[in-house]
Amino acid sequence: MNKEKRIYLDNAATTPLDGRVLQAMMPLLKDNFGNASSLHSFGTEAKEMLTYSRKKIASYLNASADEIIFTGSGTESNNLALKGIAFANKNKGNHIIVSSIEHDCVLNTCKWLETQGFYVSYLSVNNEGLIDYQELEKLINPKTILVSVMHANNEVGSIQPIDEVGKICKQRKIYFHSDACQSFGKLEIDVVKANIDLLTINAHKIYGPKGVGALYINKEVQISPLLHGGGQEMGIRSSTENIAGIVGFAKAAELCIDEMESETKRISCLRNILAEELQNNYEGFYINGSTTQRLHTNLNFAISGLEGETIRLLLLLDEKGIAVSTGSACSNNDTTKSASHVLQAMGRNQFESRGAIRLSIGRFNTEDDIDYFIESFTNTVKKLNPIFS
Amino acid sequence: MNKEKRIYLDNAATTPLDGRVLQAMMPLLKDNFGNASSLHSFGTEAKEMLTYSRKKIASYLNASADEIIFTGSGTESNNLALKGIAFANKNKGNHIIVSSIEHDCVLNTCKWLETQGFYVSYLSVNNEGLIDYQELEKLINPKTILVSVMHANNEVGSIQPIDEVGKICKQRKIYFHSDACQSFGKLEIDVVKANIDLLTINAHKIYGPKGVGALYINKEVQISPLLHGGGQEMGIRSSTENIAGIVGFAKAAELCIDEMESETKRISCLRNILAEELQNNYEGFYINGSTTQRLHTNLNFAISGLEGETIRLLLLLDEKGIAVSTGSACSNNDTTKSASHVLQAMGRNQFESRGAIRLSIGRFNTEDDIDYFIESFTNTVKKLNPIFS
Repeated sequence: MNKEKRIYLDNAATTPLDGRVLQAMMPLLKDNFGNASSLHSFGTEAKEMLTYSRKKIASYLNASADEIIFTGSGTESNNLALKGIAFANKNKGNHIIVSSIEHDCVLNTCKWLETQGFYVSYLSVNNEGLIDYQELEKLINPKTILVSVMHANNEVGSIQPIDEVGKICKQRKIYFHSDACQSFGKLEIDVVKANIDLLTINAHKIYGPKGVGALYINKEVQISPLLHGGGQEMGIRSSTENIAGIVGFAKAAELCIDEMESETKRISCLRNILAEELQNNYEGFYINGSTTQRLHTNLNFAISGLEGETIRLLLLLDEKGIAVSTGSACSNNDTTKSASHVLQAMGRNQFESRGAIRLSIGRFNTEDDIDYFIESFTNTVKKLNPIFS
Repeated sequence: MNKEKRIYLDNAATTPLDGRVLQAMMPLLKDNFGNASSLHSFGTEAKEMLTYSRKKIASYLNASADEIIFTGSGTESNNLALKGIAFANKNKGNHIIVSSIEHDCVLNTCKWLETQGFYVSYLSVNNEGLIDYQELEKLINPKTILVSVMHANNEVGSIQPIDEVGKICKQRKIYFHSDACQSFGKLEIDVVKANIDLLTINAHKIYGPKGVGALYINKEVQISPLLHGGGQEMGIRSSTENIAGIVGFAKAAELCIDEMESETKRISCLRNILAEELQNNYEGFYINGSTTQRLHTNLNFAISGLEGETIRLLLLLDEKGIAVSTGSACSNNDTTKSASHVLQAMGRNQFESRGAIRLSIGRFNTEDDIDYFIESFTNTVKKLNPIFS
């Protein structure tokens, strides 16, 4: 591996902790260590920081502070949303609708709910990775209690029409949950305007710490806790609050919101330079996903004829210090599953669904990184297959 | 509040993060930020730290590394243990036995399981806060799938006869879970010797970070996940791993184990000085809990005739910069519940169960702290009730 130069282009998997976020966390990792449930001043100081962070996060979603429940991860928030709604509302119905390109934590939670008396419909997507909200309307039945459609997809970056989904759910009086782990801090989100009842966000995708997430829960929503205990987080998520992590999350959110406009421009520009360069260099270059309804940070692509070499390509790039991925990092834990379920749902064949390269550009990437990537990519591809030289 | 002098004597609620733990965490909060599931070198470096930490924690329990599942808190570990065993073994039976003085996260999980077709027996304790393992034998029936008895109690510090419980469970082929959040790092724990199938531990009680726990699960145990998703933690606890927190946890455990012998002596000595002083000064002084089977860090006491003044006493001590508590911090979230369920189970009346003061001494307390506490306590008690002057 190239120890001198390291280019991280996998910001959809996780992001570096911003130094300003770490700075905001440091007092909580040093003197201000109290348990927010304690009645003495060590506790009340912790509680103040908790309250401050909760208000801050709420304000970025147009929510009230008491609608924000801190959790330990995006996965936990998604599990809480789906299982919590299912268990609390099974007297109303046992049908759930989710998109077929949700993150594994939504899909595997659904699989488990199917063993517990619930049935789940999976919304298809078109070849751009976008759902059809008219199909959604057809899938709704009197037993439907919840629709879960992610805001932006983690692999291809496609941005779903959540305003339309929200409208339909509101009309039909069905809870609407959206996993916004990939979009929060990159796109504006207004839970009131979009009629969202539950929204998942987390910190480590927005230059905050790992181990912290949140779930926005509209105050009208009936939900069961997933973690029972001391009654923290308004009784919905017991556990001693991870105040340092929560303060870091709020600071990370603040920075993303403050810099959203300029970063969107800057990162879009880098992504477009990259895509154009690849397009010009390789005849077989194609993009997976929408080119209009897509996160500005995402480029998921392949080169015809080179799909079989993706893993070797990534390993060779890694030797040059470049980090990119084939798709979701989480799915690497399941060794039986190497083809992307997202690309398959978009109509890609098995071969194509194994052959994608995902680049996700972030705050700390520069034009030099993109140049270095292009240069390294070109040399590596040549090495792998002289046809491409 | 006295800003100059601050004495923290509430180490059972949470502990300060040790500077050496923070130092171990720093590289993970800076350059080594990878997602442990990523295939590139940022990911594999994170994975190495994860594996290293897992081995380390396992070694302190006489467990194998693949028997350690990292979670987000002690509460989550206890929820995973109880719900995970209940759901995975309901074909074998639906009866669970727990002690009546478990932490709220065990008791409230049991209450929820009672709504899901399980029934729970609550083991009584004697006036020292100790269970009777012969009563346990009587409560076991052919439907019993799990016994959960905490190692050391969070309020009174009583240490349960877990070796005896383990023997009984092994003979009867019933899973044995123990919540060791209060004892891990203070008492030696050997899961093999004690026949423990599942053991809960966490970081923030041992001078590690908040937001990290673990569950030891013997590899023969059948358990269902609580968080479904990307399949991290051997498929038992999905979520992007909080590597900084996990590395901090392992370092915190290392320090506790290395310093256990000397710290046990030092802290016992401080606790005994404190108890003797109070005993000598107040005729009505009494200890809640066992004086033989008790954590060396714990002193839970009251003074006859002063039980009604506990909250005012704690607030006045807080003004002098001293942090102590009435009992579990977590139970402060439930405003309907001010009497300790632990003290009630031990036979204390309502009045006495509201009147206890819990001091928990920790690594950073000195003899000066104890002297300052005695002086402040004496003055405050005098002020509250001149009878005691």
